[in-house]
Amino acid sequence: MPKDMTAETSIYDRRESAARSYCRSFPTTFVKAQGSELTGADGKTYIDFLAGCSSLNYGHNDPDMKAALIDYISADGITHGLDMHTEAKTAFLEAYEEHILKPRGLDYKVMFTGPTGTNAVEAAIKLARKVTDRRNVVAFTNGFHGMTLGSLALTGNSGKRAGAGGAHLGDVTHLPFEGSMGDDIDTLQFIEAMLENASSGVDAPAAFIFEPVQGEGGLNAASDEWMQGVAKLAKKLGALLIVDDIQAGCGRTGTYFAFERAGIVPDMVTQAKSLSGFGLPFAALLIKPEHDIWKPAEHNGTFRGNNHAFVTGRVAIEKFWSDKTFETELAHKAALLTTGLQELADMIPGATLKGRGLMQGVDVGSGELAGEICARAFEKGLVIETSGAEDEVVKVLAPLTTPDATFRKGLSILIDAARDVTETTKIAAE
Amino acid sequence: MPKDMTAETSIYDRRESAARSYCRSFPTTFVKAQGSELTGADGKTYIDFLAGCSSLNYGHNDPDMKAALIDYISADGITHGLDMHTEAKTAFLEAYEEHILKPRGLDYKVMFTGPTGTNAVEAAIKLARKVTDRRNVVAFTNGFHGMTLGSLALTGNSGKRAGAGGAHLGDVTHLPFEGSMGDDIDTLQFIEAMLENASSGVDAPAAFIFEPVQGEGGLNAASDEWMQGVAKLAKKLGALLIVDDIQAGCGRTGTYFAFERAGIVPDMVTQAKSLSGFGLPFAALLIKPEHDIWKPAEHNGTFRGNNHAFVTGRVAIEKFWSDKTFETELAHKAALLTTGLQELADMIPGATLKGRGLMQGVDVGSGELAGEICARAFEKGLVIETSGAEDEVVKVLAPLTTPDATFRKGLSILIDAARDVTETTKIAAE
Amino acid sequence: MPKDMTAETSIYDRRESAARSYCRSFPTTFVKAQGSELTGADGKTYIDFLAGCSSLNYGHNDPDMKAALIDYISADGITHGLDMHTEAKTAFLEAYEEHILKPRGLDYKVMFTGPTGTNAVEAAIKLARKVTDRRNVVAFTNGFHGMTLGSLALTGNSGKRAGAGGAHLGDVTHLPFEGSMGDDIDTLQFIEAMLENASSGVDAPAAFIFEPVQGEGGLNAASDEWMQGVAKLAKKLGALLIVDDIQAGCGRTGTYFAFERAGIVPDMVTQAKSLSGFGLPFAALLIKPEHDIWKPAEHNGTFRGNNHAFVTGRVAIEKFWSDKTFETELAHKAALLTTGLQELADMIPGATLKGRGLMQGVDVGSGELAGEICARAFEKGLVIETSGAEDEVVKVLAPLTTPDATFRKGLSILIDAARDVTETTKIAAE
Amino acid sequence: MPKDMTAETSIYDRRESAARSYCRSFPTTFVKAQGSELTGADGKTYIDFLAGCSSLNYGHNDPDMKAALIDYISADGITHGLDMHTEAKTAFLEAYEEHILKPRGLDYKVMFTGPTGTNAVEAAIKLARKVTDRRNVVAFTNGFHGMTLGSLALTGNSGKRAGAGGAHLGDVTHLPFEGSMGDDIDTLQFIEAMLENASSGVDAPAAFIFEPVQGEGGLNAASDEWMQGVAKLAKKLGALLIVDDIQAGCGRTGTYFAFERAGIVPDMVTQAKSLSGFGLPFAALLIKPEHDIWKPAEHNGTFRGNNHAFVTGRVAIEKFWSDKTFETELAHKAALLTTGLQELADMIPGATLKGRGLMQGVDVGSGELAGEICARAFEKGLVIETSGAEDEVVKVLAPLTTPDATFRKGLSILIDAARDVTETTKIAAE
Repeated sequence: MPKDMTAETSIYDRRESAARSYCRSFPTTFVKAQGSELTGADGKTYIDFLAGCSSLNYGHNDPDMKAALIDYISADGITHGLDMHTEAKTAFLEAYEEHILKPRGLDYKVMFTGPTGTNAVEAAIKLARKVTDRRNVVAFTNGFHGMTLGSLALTGNSGKRAGAGGAHLGDVTHLPFEGSMGDDIDTLQFIEAMLENASSGVDAPAAFIFEPVQGEGGLNAASDEWMQGVAKLAKKLGALLIVDDIQAGCGRTGTYFAFERAGIVPDMVTQAKSLSGFGLPFAALLIKPEHDIWKPAEHNGTFRGNNHAFVTGRVAIEKFWSDKTFETELAHKAALLTTGLQELADMIPGATLKGRGLMQGVDVGSGELAGEICARAFEKGLVIETSGAEDEVVKVLAPLTTPDATFRKGLSILIDAARDVTETTKIAAE
Repeated sequence: MPKDMTAETSIYDRRESAARSYCRSFPTTFVKAQGSELTGADGKTYIDFLAGCSSLNYGHNDPDMKAALIDYISADGITHGLDMHTEAKTAFLEAYEEHILKPRGLDYKVMFTGPTGTNAVEAAIKLARKVTDRRNVVAFTNGFHGMTLGSLALTGNSGKRAGAGGAHLGDVTHLPFEGSMGDDIDTLQFIEAMLENASSGVDAPAAFIFEPVQGEGGLNAASDEWMQGVAKLAKKLGALLIVDDIQAGCGRTGTYFAFERAGIVPDMVTQAKSLSGFGLPFAALLIKPEHDIWKPAEHNGTFRGNNHAFVTGRVAIEKFWSDKTFETELAHKAALLTTGLQELADMIPGATLKGRGLMQGVDVGSGELAGEICARAFEKGLVIETSGAEDEVVKVLAPLTTPDATFRKGLSILIDAARDVTETTKIAAE
Repeated sequence: MPKDMTAETSIYDRRESAARSYCRSFPTTFVKAQGSELTGADGKTYIDFLAGCSSLNYGHNDPDMKAALIDYISADGITHGLDMHTEAKTAFLEAYEEHILKPRGLDYKVMFTGPTGTNAVEAAIKLARKVTDRRNVVAFTNGFHGMTLGSLALTGNSGKRAGAGGAHLGDVTHLPFEGSMGDDIDTLQFIEAMLENASSGVDAPAAFIFEPVQGEGGLNAASDEWMQGVAKLAKKLGALLIVDDIQAGCGRTGTYFAFERAGIVPDMVTQAKSLSGFGLPFAALLIKPEHDIWKPAEHNGTFRGNNHAFVTGRVAIEKFWSDKTFETELAHKAALLTTGLQELADMIPGATLKGRGLMQGVDVGSGELAGEICARAFEKGLVIETSGAEDEVVKVLAPLTTPDATFRKGLSILIDAARDVTETTKIAAE
Repeated sequence: MPKDMTAETSIYDRRESAARSYCRSFPTTFVKAQGSELTGADGKTYIDFLAGCSSLNYGHNDPDMKAALIDYISADGITHGLDMHTEAKTAFLEAYEEHILKPRGLDYKVMFTGPTGTNAVEAAIKLARKVTDRRNVVAFTNGFHGMTLGSLALTGNSGKRAGAGGAHLGDVTHLPFEGSMGDDIDTLQFIEAMLENASSGVDAPAAFIFEPVQGEGGLNAASDEWMQGVAKLAKKLGALLIVDDIQAGCGRTGTYFAFERAGIVPDMVTQAKSLSGFGLPFAALLIKPEHDIWKPAEHNGTFRGNNHAFVTGRVAIEKFWSDKTFETELAHKAALLTTGLQELADMIPGATLKGRGLMQGVDVGSGELAGEICARAFEKGLVIETSGAEDEVVKVLAPLTTPDATFRKGLSILIDAARDVTETTKIAAE
């Protein structure tokens, strides 16, 4: 690392907690970003195939959102209003109703929880338990739902779970996600066998929670049939269905909600990440009206309803979701991505494509290899990370708005990086 | 309610969850805010004695922070960067080190957790359990630490706890906060008797967590002796001391940290609310370096390290905490507040002053009376809320920057409101 | 019910808790018992196909045990000695070592827990958690391990679990017992898939606990392969293997230990029920020496080591287990039982045989039918009960020592009872 | 240790679990016992001041119980009858109603749980949770209620709690027993302050459970006022009152129930230890009829209702409790005990008397000293043990039937032993 870089980042060594992580993979200081590109302090430009882990689906600093936000701040718009009514909030809710809920025939109450995904998840499971007067929540293998204690109990990863320091992660039953037991095993059969047996020892569930495509768990995509099966089983058992659409939602898999394609209507849906459209902290829980039995302030929080996010979130909805144009583009780009990743996969024996839409990747078989490819890609100007239980999946989470040329260039860098790494490995082996 | 108001807010009835609360007490739509004043859609102006529950200690839209934020956004500064290094983050950390830590002789690592107070609290208790390999955390009566499951377990209020829907709120022992058992009882004696008895059934604690002044629990202020006693006991028992400075910190009680006056150095400190200075979602956990044993990403989160908040937070630190001027002003204003509240208390038999610094209020003896006073105050142009187990405390949380004239005017409205309510009550009684 | 019977039992209505159960199915007062027969206050004699739920494997009041016990009491032998050394205890341990452990090549430490099965189970899981420093215990669907909180958490039946009144039944993962998902499904595959995935959310287990034949769960018999598979997996995962041999042990399935046939050596084995040989309260936990890390009195109890049971238990061992004669008889009687039950099953469409050895029954498809058959059998002089999640299995647990003639007579009554019930049902249907 | 003794007990080293404890303090093999005396294999006779930890309140092998039991066994009386009606059970219940309940004006249902104290405690807390639909149970510092998971959660001793191996001991709040915070502190005030504060974080209790005199916790005797205070508070809070009378009951403190003197009527009472009168495993839970909401078999167990214990227990009731003679004797002997222990206490600076009735001891200030006194006493022919969090109390639990001469002799040995030890210590110090 060049000397001046060291100087520049020594404050992090001195003062930032060891919990920091992405800065270790991408050891530069970023100074600006526009669209799909990040610029470092050294002037170097990077294509962003990480997109804030799907928090920047519309790219960095979208000009329309940016203009609206600057106008709002300039006019002394309410920044922090607890959950009081504000013009910005009114406009967001109206846009959300008009362009998101109505066209999909959905009738949800919107709860603005603390502005992180985990806060929305916590609210969802608390409410499901209240509604059903049951405690047990069914979560799935390789699922990721957050780091606060209630969400962590739902999360599969043993490394993350160890962070609880031995505190009790209870009231949750983990069952197998589709495909997690091998391709030939019908996990729904297992799930039903466990839950429909009154002597199984698994208590009747308050809710099921799953991600349509598991973002952290390795880009495992649930089929429509599986999603429908879980929905049907939940209904049969008197449990609520919660879809965690935090990473897979907001267009990432090709539709606004990742569950739309299955034709199911969850009882609750968690949203965060790209909900503000601009990368601002923001989260919401959608609740079927009949389940919205909260007492006022029974689940509260200081930053619920970030007004700046209302402003940019409204623009995002109006700009990208007022008609079908954007969805059409997404299908096109997803195909582009599949093609590129197939080329990468073909280079690596045993590698397989994972995911859906613009949430695809390649399982290269080992975390070490995937990590080397990503590290090499970064040297070549591409920001990209891994996913999966063993970090074995090279995961592409580019902004959905990435221009074709940039997208192809990014894929090209990725393929070059993989080639470098695999050739080096071959040479080393020889 | 006037007809057009109904029209304006009907989207909330249709679409916002029943969990919303402040909008019920303050039934108007706010459109802008500057300093200590809010403006409604009807053009009416309100003095703000709520300040986003202490999230707006420097008032609304502080001009310097506002300018810096607009500049940053205009220049396409990084908005969302996960926990990568950014110029904004570097500058914030440098300012924090220079103006907050160094002058107070504090050596802390800073962990940027998900940007809400509860996320910082969750990180703190997870880490305390990891460090000590113990599970039990001692929290205190009337304490409030957040709504996610780990924090909720620490929280005293039974209404909030009921929100868990029966999920297990374990691994916590609740012990009495100073003064909670009556003025003549030394709660430290009780705490020690329970914790120093190896056959008490209370497991050895990983940590103690308390608020120097309990914001939600009724403005109960811990004495220096009590804070020192808890700190000493924690050390003796091999437990960590966590101070939750979320509501009481950032100058609210007269010093930057609310615990400073007691001369204690907690093992961890949670910060949020006014940390960004601008009302933006932002939270941090301070950790003594020897306890910073997190593995990279062991506790992660999408919105940790809100870059917009780094920008405004840095300005807040430089503007208000680079010398002692602000602290001196706070002492002056606190005296002003005490005088005003004493006048109010004198009108109500049995009423007592609570709190410390600019976090004071009056216990008027009943939640009903306190609620009526606040409601009447709102009609007269003052935004103010209650606190306490029974909402029996009228709580003043004005921006710390409120000009004297505005401050006096707000207090005058409050006193008038109390007079109206008590006189009406007297007439009704006669 | 005849008048004098009512008079005789009214004390139960007045004074015994509603939790009582068997007396409801067998509404008479029993006054004496010998071998395989019970005598009621009315002089009526009943063949016992219940045998105290497998607590009377050697029949009632075995003459040799009876004589030894009377001698012991007459000589003022120690009745209650806490866990002090007594002659009776010495003799029991020596016989146990000589006739049970040595011939099977087993090296176990014997822990005399409180004299009920659940106490032994509780000791086992406590020790497994201490040994492994892990908390999670894997139990199986339809398993039954007792009613105290730790054992109840392992138990599958939802009715029993409801008895906890909402107390936390945690630190346990329930996985499917062999056959519980249908005959064609390999449950071991599912178990491995869940436990070998580090992101499954199922914490690494301290232990596996299973019954070789599930007594309360419906006489589900694990195959040798399945038992071996679980044993192998436990070892691979660093977990202990606990076999709960309380109901299936002491010869019930044809060998002294029900797991012997599989060639596995569990890390711990729980014993109770027929361990005293005489129906006296008595329980033990066998522990591999390397896991016997208890501190003195770390798990204690007033009645651990019932000296009367040491006396009768020693006789039982010496009389029945000093050579292979008894085992040979058991095989003969098991065949007799299978033949009889097949006859019964043939009368009922869809009925299937369940179980193993002298722990067999017939799944008649519904709890109602099974209950009617047992009730009718009781009228005809046979004490017998049902088993299974829905009480759908007519379960034969005759004393292992039942003479052939009595055994045939009992089976004959059972078949007649079934015929009566099925014919009545047919007639009713016509 | 003499060589032949080693030979005799080597089976224990080879085969008994390290959890064994009393045999370590009393390293001999006992062969017979009568009344208040035990005889070792070496022919040596010991006075028994331990009485099976209060399980032998009527001495060893009481001749009347012994005769009745031999008669019963000789006549092939039912030994094991699950919870079916038997003559022995009928007679026990009738005697219990006639001589225990009626004279005290008590109306209880009797539940025969598994035959150990902890099983009765587990049943009690399960039922209290079912009745109240609350989970939290209040237990007290230094309380001891058993080793199974539910009872262990109620137990104070950290060494015992460690036996859980980290399993969750939840749903319990531990509060201070009378005197545990020093003589001048009113613990009831603390208890009320914690439980009557809706924001204390202590959930509304299902039940309170306490021992009138804490047997394992150091012979702490609750005053009548304290017991009444807890009873009153329980009623006020809608919680059930459970008295654990396992060690202190059956006459041990001077009355049949240890709580009688306070004039309270608990909602439930646990009994075990001396309930059979003969040292046989036996336990019961008394339940006010309105709380007896168990479903049949909802809490079951193989050995509930030990018929041998019904036989001896009936004799015990009829012999000792059919009039007031025994109670009068107890008062006399308690005075004798106090006098003797005072003599002992006077020898040791700072020593204080503890306990009540025939459950008294001396707190000698250190576990080491108490242990040495007991060890020396054993050498001199007295079996006696320590109690308390630090084993600092020399505890006398002689059979209640001990003849005066024997009682005086035992006390004399104890005093001699204390003298030996204290003089040796003095000499060593000089």
